[in-house]
Amino acid sequence: MNNKKELTQLLEEVASGKTPVEEAVLRFRELPFEDLGYAKTDLHRGMRQGVAEVIYGAGKTPEQILGIVQSLWKHRQKTILITRMSEDAKELVAASFPLEYEPVSRTGIVGEKAEPDGRGTIVVATGGTSDIPVAEEAALTAEAFGNHVVRVYDVGVAGIHRLFAHQRDILSARVIIAIAGMEGALASVIGGMADCPVIAVPTSVGYGASFGGLSALLSMLNSCASGVSVVNIDNGFGAGYLASMINHLD
Amino acid sequence: MNNKKELTQLLEEVASGKTPVEEAVLRFRELPFEDLGYAKTDLHRGMRQGVAEVIYGAGKTPEQILGIVQSLWKHRQKTILITRMSEDAKELVAASFPLEYEPVSRTGIVGEKAEPDGRGTIVVATGGTSDIPVAEEAALTAEAFGNHVVRVYDVGVAGIHRLFAHQRDILSARVIIAIAGMEGALASVIGGMADCPVIAVPTSVGYGASFGGLSALLSMLNSCASGVSVVNIDNGFGAGYLASMINHLD
Amino acid sequence: MNNKKELTQLLEEVASGKTPVEEAVLRFRELPFEDLGYAKTDLHRGMRQGVAEVIYGAGKTPEQILGIVQSLWKHRQKTILITRMSEDAKELVAASFPLEYEPVSRTGIVGEKAEPDGRGTIVVATGGTSDIPVAEEAALTAEAFGNHVVRVYDVGVAGIHRLFAHQRDILSARVIIAIAGMEGALASVIGGMADCPVIAVPTSVGYGASFGGLSALLSMLNSCASGVSVVNIDNGFGAGYLASMINHLD
Amino acid sequence: MNNKKELTQLLEEVASGKTPVEEAVLRFRELPFEDLGYAKTDLHRGMRQGVAEVIYGAGKTPEQILGIVQSLWKHRQKTILITRMSEDAKELVAASFPLEYEPVSRTGIVGEKAEPDGRGTIVVATGGTSDIPVAEEAALTAEAFGNHVVRVYDVGVAGIHRLFAHQRDILSARVIIAIAGMEGALASVIGGMADCPVIAVPTSVGYGASFGGLSALLSMLNSCASGVSVVNIDNGFGAGYLASMINHLD
Amino acid sequence: MNNKKELTQLLEEVASGKTPVEEAVLRFRELPFEDLGYAKTDLHRGMRQGVAEVIYGAGKTPEQILGIVQSLWKHRQKTILITRMSEDAKELVAASFPLEYEPVSRTGIVGEKAEPDGRGTIVVATGGTSDIPVAEEAALTAEAFGNHVVRVYDVGVAGIHRLFAHQRDILSARVIIAIAGMEGALASVIGGMADCPVIAVPTSVGYGASFGGLSALLSMLNSCASGVSVVNIDNGFGAGYLASMINHLD
Amino acid sequence: MNNKKELTQLLEEVASGKTPVEEAVLRFRELPFEDLGYAKTDLHRGMRQGVAEVIYGAGKTPEQILGIVQSLWKHRQKTILITRMSEDAKELVAASFPLEYEPVSRTGIVGEKAEPDGRGTIVVATGGTSDIPVAEEAALTAEAFGNHVVRVYDVGVAGIHRLFAHQRDILSARVIIAIAGMEGALASVIGGMADCPVIAVPTSVGYGASFGGLSALLSMLNSCASGVSVVNIDNGFGAGYLASMINHLD
Amino acid sequence: MNNKKELTQLLEEVASGKTPVEEAVLRFRELPFEDLGYAKTDLHRGMRQGVAEVIYGAGKTPEQILGIVQSLWKHRQKTILITRMSEDAKELVAASFPLEYEPVSRTGIVGEKAEPDGRGTIVVATGGTSDIPVAEEAALTAEAFGNHVVRVYDVGVAGIHRLFAHQRDILSARVIIAIAGMEGALASVIGGMADCPVIAVPTSVGYGASFGGLSALLSMLNSCASGVSVVNIDNGFGAGYLASMINHLD
Amino acid sequence: MNNKKELTQLLEEVASGKTPVEEAVLRFRELPFEDLGYAKTDLHRGMRQGVAEVIYGAGKTPEQILGIVQSLWKHRQKTILITRMSEDAKELVAASFPLEYEPVSRTGIVGEKAEPDGRGTIVVATGGTSDIPVAEEAALTAEAFGNHVVRVYDVGVAGIHRLFAHQRDILSARVIIAIAGMEGALASVIGGMADCPVIAVPTSVGYGASFGGLSALLSMLNSCASGVSVVNIDNGFGAGYLASMINHLD
Repeated sequence: MNNKKELTQLLEEVASGKTPVEEAVLRFRELPFEDLGYAKTDLHRGMRQGVAEVIYGAGKTPEQILGIVQSLWKHRQKTILITRMSEDAKELVAASFPLEYEPVSRTGIVGEKAEPDGRGTIVVATGGTSDIPVAEEAALTAEAFGNHVVRVYDVGVAGIHRLFAHQRDILSARVIIAIAGMEGALASVIGGMADCPVIAVPTSVGYGASFGGLSALLSMLNSCASGVSVVNIDNGFGAGYLASMINHLD
Repeated sequence: MNNKKELTQLLEEVASGKTPVEEAVLRFRELPFEDLGYAKTDLHRGMRQGVAEVIYGAGKTPEQILGIVQSLWKHRQKTILITRMSEDAKELVAASFPLEYEPVSRTGIVGEKAEPDGRGTIVVATGGTSDIPVAEEAALTAEAFGNHVVRVYDVGVAGIHRLFAHQRDILSARVIIAIAGMEGALASVIGGMADCPVIAVPTSVGYGASFGGLSALLSMLNSCASGVSVVNIDNGFGAGYLASMINHLD
Repeated sequence: MNNKKELTQLLEEVASGKTPVEEAVLRFRELPFEDLGYAKTDLHRGMRQGVAEVIYGAGKTPEQILGIVQSLWKHRQKTILITRMSEDAKELVAASFPLEYEPVSRTGIVGEKAEPDGRGTIVVATGGTSDIPVAEEAALTAEAFGNHVVRVYDVGVAGIHRLFAHQRDILSARVIIAIAGMEGALASVIGGMADCPVIAVPTSVGYGASFGGLSALLSMLNSCASGVSVVNIDNGFGAGYLASMINHLD
Repeated sequence: MNNKKELTQLLEEVASGKTPVEEAVLRFRELPFEDLGYAKTDLHRGMRQGVAEVIYGAGKTPEQILGIVQSLWKHRQKTILITRMSEDAKELVAASFPLEYEPVSRTGIVGEKAEPDGRGTIVVATGGTSDIPVAEEAALTAEAFGNHVVRVYDVGVAGIHRLFAHQRDILSARVIIAIAGMEGALASVIGGMADCPVIAVPTSVGYGASFGGLSALLSMLNSCASGVSVVNIDNGFGAGYLASMINHLD
Repeated sequence: MNNKKELTQLLEEVASGKTPVEEAVLRFRELPFEDLGYAKTDLHRGMRQGVAEVIYGAGKTPEQILGIVQSLWKHRQKTILITRMSEDAKELVAASFPLEYEPVSRTGIVGEKAEPDGRGTIVVATGGTSDIPVAEEAALTAEAFGNHVVRVYDVGVAGIHRLFAHQRDILSARVIIAIAGMEGALASVIGGMADCPVIAVPTSVGYGASFGGLSALLSMLNSCASGVSVVNIDNGFGAGYLASMINHLD
Repeated sequence: MNNKKELTQLLEEVASGKTPVEEAVLRFRELPFEDLGYAKTDLHRGMRQGVAEVIYGAGKTPEQILGIVQSLWKHRQKTILITRMSEDAKELVAASFPLEYEPVSRTGIVGEKAEPDGRGTIVVATGGTSDIPVAEEAALTAEAFGNHVVRVYDVGVAGIHRLFAHQRDILSARVIIAIAGMEGALASVIGGMADCPVIAVPTSVGYGASFGGLSALLSMLNSCASGVSVVNIDNGFGAGYLASMINHLD
Repeated sequence: MNNKKELTQLLEEVASGKTPVEEAVLRFRELPFEDLGYAKTDLHRGMRQGVAEVIYGAGKTPEQILGIVQSLWKHRQKTILITRMSEDAKELVAASFPLEYEPVSRTGIVGEKAEPDGRGTIVVATGGTSDIPVAEEAALTAEAFGNHVVRVYDVGVAGIHRLFAHQRDILSARVIIAIAGMEGALASVIGGMADCPVIAVPTSVGYGASFGGLSALLSMLNSCASGVSVVNIDNGFGAGYLASMINHLD
Repeated sequence: MNNKKELTQLLEEVASGKTPVEEAVLRFRELPFEDLGYAKTDLHRGMRQGVAEVIYGAGKTPEQILGIVQSLWKHRQKTILITRMSEDAKELVAASFPLEYEPVSRTGIVGEKAEPDGRGTIVVATGGTSDIPVAEEAALTAEAFGNHVVRVYDVGVAGIHRLFAHQRDILSARVIIAIAGMEGALASVIGGMADCPVIAVPTSVGYGASFGGLSALLSMLNSCASGVSVVNIDNGFGAGYLASMINHLD
């Protein structure tokens, strides 16, 4: 039982007699997590948070990632998102599971993507070309969780007419993810134009006094535009996840 | 014309002949801002962003604040929110305008609060008693913009049963604002429980290695829970504004 | 002899016999600085750098400031600029010298301002109302050294149409001083619009993660727009001085 | 004479005549350290601190490590713990000594582990899978010094029910080592549940604004829970050593 | 029921029939916290952690502190410790409760101190005279919770013979609290001498590159001596609390 | 149409009938940028800023760089500067375009350098030998945009007579670029000697407490000499671009 | 017995029979420190380090300072230096002891200054007027310990001819103390000119990115000139003490 | 003419007629530096500072290092010290010059070491084994410039008896170089024992919160012991150079 929809459906089937009570009990008696020793896969996250367990690949061995995929798959999770997945992990997982892998953002998806059932459009905008890996992590995460995504790349404020050419996309979005390194001004400019929530993602793109994304992070936190909030440096996944959550609010 | 609702209404009146074209033209020919020399009041923000201009009181003299209030009032803005308003500014503004002033958060409202027309409930939670000034700024902002707010104060993770006693509030919220100083763990714990967007506000509460809120800020940015985004240290207004925006998405 | 113009004029008078050699020798035999014990007034700065000695008032006692003014005045410096001048110092100096004092930026000028002989216009722009003290220090410095200044205040990127309303000023300037706190995005946006040098001044305006201007500083240093350079936080004087230097290049 | 127990025993043997005075004198006349030139092995640490000299492997060549092992072995140290031991050093030492090597934490033990004589149980808990190398360093250190260790891995606060499933372990521990990267909230939550000392170990796990463990470190230092103290980032050894010390207090 | 001893005692009385079951039920049915609106007093902390709720006075108004004292007192907490208590709060509380107030550390105790029932001695050492306020907070906390405390002040490493004169105190302690600002070397030197846990408290004493205690904090975290752990800058209370916890382990 | 000169020329030809209106219209109807998906090449930058689009090579794949070169070349940009160009990118671009590549600074130029039409001389000075890669990036950028450049390398303040030997260069420059790592004092010393704008470039040269150029950056921002402004660490391009802009002011 | 000279003299008197052995024994039997509770006055520092105990006044109450003065005076210390002495402490001490107080640096001396017996001259140079308080602390410390001091104030590198006018002082010094805030370049320039040790003292003079002296500190630590070492920000005393130590080496 | 001794000797020979004036003139007419384009070798440093030019190898190509060696050699410099010399540079230089190379510290010496003519002994002490590379750079530098060096390695404060075993070395030194990473307490402890100048060198040895030597650096700057000054992190050369300078003062 990986999300609220399934939970609701099961309860309705019980109510209508379609599913016998005994079978439903069995489904509920699953432990809320499976203990693999090195990891405890969170099997109730879908029910608790509406979106099922995701695997953050960095710092895990290929074997550990495979083990977690096996655990989630066994418990009938339909979409398993794996971020920051190394080439090695990809090889290992792809040998046993249907894996879609996007190399720029190093994102993998085991199983099927959700149908686009979000209420509006999520715009993913970047300041420059070098921000694209983070942007793709955000976009693929949002798509995996059932959202329609519009990509608007390389619209940094140094040539602001490029951004204004996309004004219609900005104004009709339900959520916007603004991704930029260097001085991160993109978030403020978009925040001043749009009337929907803007999730700002600082990236570690830049050099010198960008200090690995610190400059963009501080810039975005201090945005003079309202309606802007910030996630961790390079955290495309976090932005995509939150955008999906907002886009599914009814 | 301070927000999209008014804009839509005016256009409908024009369409139905209720408002003559000439009068509508006059309304539209207002400049999008008034230039006071020391400030340019943004008169189209309501139309552009759905919420009218807000006055950030810090760093402005009482006279400047009064001048901006006069400009917005003259242009028919119905609710004028003033944050970080000094006692002096309060005295000066209250002499000429109907002002409601909340001293803990130093927030003032000129005119009438919006009717609660948000779609759900906004929970404002704090880790401790000392975070309340920031929390009230957030709560009053959300209320001023038409939201129903539930306050859950002093539920820091050192005695986590106090938070769990409010589990029902957490689970039924449409947006949660999690406010904490020190180590800011509250945002992660709430983020792990809730299935709605969590806006984390680090506060400058603490001492020593809290470094004026830096510790809580970093903690919240690195939250292992998904669905959490962060605004600036002590930025209760920003959190309330964003929460209201999310709560008004249809 | 406080600047190159005077130096050139003297030499021409000697060449033409108008000034006897002996008198010129006397003028040249002045020491390049006067030693007051607590300060060594730089009497050749005008000749060396084209602009005469300026007094940075912070950290000096009113008596020390008065002493330096007396030394410069005695050596025929025509315009004595004093920045960050306290009320006390103002009182003391004004008792003996013709002093013009601007209280917002705490800038004093003893003697006469230079005639506007710069080649173009210097635009001084700010993101917000709270940046005005720094902006006035920049503007008054530039005016004291003979420049025509256009002030464009409160045009931060949260309402970018306010900046675009001044596009003509931006495009016709010879130098622009862009002053902003918080996220400092103004410098990048102006830098992308203008085709002249932009001097960015971060201010300590803001709170929380603005860390006393650090955020705006880093933002401006990482500007993705070309033609932007940066001076110290709140250094209105430095920006005005440099702008004047550029505006006087032939 | 590597620890207080041995010291006490020797003195008792002298008292009972079992060991002649001359022989005891010889034992005492050993220098308190041996000077290898590049290192001075601390031979009295066991007597002074109850636990014998440990070799911190990082920054030492394999040859230096071998030399120190030889020195300690020669002076009858029974358990020689080597942390952060490279593969090369492992090869070299294993060629001459009985070495047990654990590759995840890169910890080596020459000689025999102490018998578990601590008074209670030490719980080693981690927020995630990536913290395991640090956790194993802590656990192996504690085991080498004679403690019973319970491992509770991947119980981070994003799915707090995983931690609560181990509540009994937490409540019955004599000391707890809480290890986490990212926002490090685990230490606070455990600190609020447990009634025994909690040693918090921040790890460099995370990315972006985790700044190599700084975020978790600050978070743990600012813990709102009492009874929590902190050791250096990734310092599993230090935590295991201190936990053992506390667990051996009578 | 404010601590485990009371809990055990009550259960024994129930077992022996001395306390009727009904009365015990009443005692247990108390809520685990009382909600004062601005604070939720943690009434089960004693049972959960062995030590009852403590009031951190900074950032709370005198009225809030009084309210919390009233709540705890009403629920029969015998010793109420208040740290960082302002003169104003002291006046207000002392008007209604038996308050002992120590002005150097601004610590207040309402009710009676616990009997010294810790197993050994806690040594509180400082590097200098200026560290005494933090040291007294630690010492008074430990005394309030039932510990025997030995104060060893002004034994910084610049005159290390002063520390060595107290070697006997150091060697016979069960726990040591080492408090120092500036370079914080005291913790390492004591850590190298002692065979018991050392709790290091960096203080904000110092100037320039001490950066408000950051220097001492980093120094202590990097201590080359084992058995040392660190609490927040100036956190005398936290050190005293933890020391008491260790000293009460049986 | 890549710069203002071309724009002016076209308009003059239209005025004189030399170019038919229809053809001019076609030229103007070009979009202001071309969208390559991963990049939007700014085709109006020349017209808007006087200098055409430059390619910042870091973080772009060789294929992306080639694509952008093709786009700019197709739109008749005569000089295409590529900074931080990898060896791989160089190979790929050189296969299809006339590329001049300077390996020390990793700078490439496709097409022809502009004729030196700046009004004066740009001096590029470095503190040491290790700063030369940054200096060459600055010098080549300035040369590509039509400036006469004088290189003055290894004149750091530790042997200040080496700098004074170049006093004539310093005094006759129109703009000076002062490049230094370590303590960055060169900018202040040159700033005190020269009467023209000084652009300071901190470099990441140094070790230990130079913290990747932070020390030089802070030093330059705090320069006590007037007329000095700063660009990002290692930003030779930015300095060369700005110097060219100042040198082309009439 | 406050210094080595006195120690040597006493032993010679014993050798020659001038002082009876019994009296010498008494002198030696003094404890090496006196314990005042809040302070342990180091009575052997003179013997151990050649210079007697100094009182750092900051963070000590006037009563504590008086107490320490009484202790040192009682043990026959002839010169008692008190740094960072408040007006209040001055009043209190001056009531009972012969005190010389210098208000700019807030330095007090009880008793008599040592005769100038250093081997050469100590030059104390500052970058600006605002650095004088720190400079006076250094100069008075050096004078109190028996050195000839030459003050060279306000010779910052922005007008480097002012420094060169003192070249003879620089070249003939035995030690130089270079004191500067802002970018701290003075230390490097002096370091490059002089052939004697240079002690650099960063000051907290400056604003914005000087970050309380951090900028000058880093600058001085990274000095490209050899022979330069650094003490803490604003630590005039430390520099004066060390300079005296070097100046008394034979 | 590479140092003052040679200068004095030449002038004496001229005075005595031993060297004809013409030849002396030739010697003096050498330029004070030779310009190699990428470097300006400082040929008067010996005369100006008493010690000849040193080559800092990091960031220079082997060819550049060779070129500078050739220039110095040609101008009769007798001892050429090269620090941070790569293996490649070593190979290249050794092919043409008599080079002594020490691999641990990567230090090279071309030509002959100076005779030990310093007045006393320089002690080089380290906290641990991993600090030895920095210590050897310091020791070899001091030896190259004519000093007697005593090495005292691995005497960190965790086992302070190891340091006290060298008390005689400490007390009889003329200068001490104290080298330590981690918490850097060694400098303070030695500073409290010794009566001679102590030069503290923080090293980048450590992990986690040592932040590349920052912790040791701050610790040493804040040393409570007097007579301690600090050089840059890992700057063994700087310490050795300064120690030699002090040891040669007469």
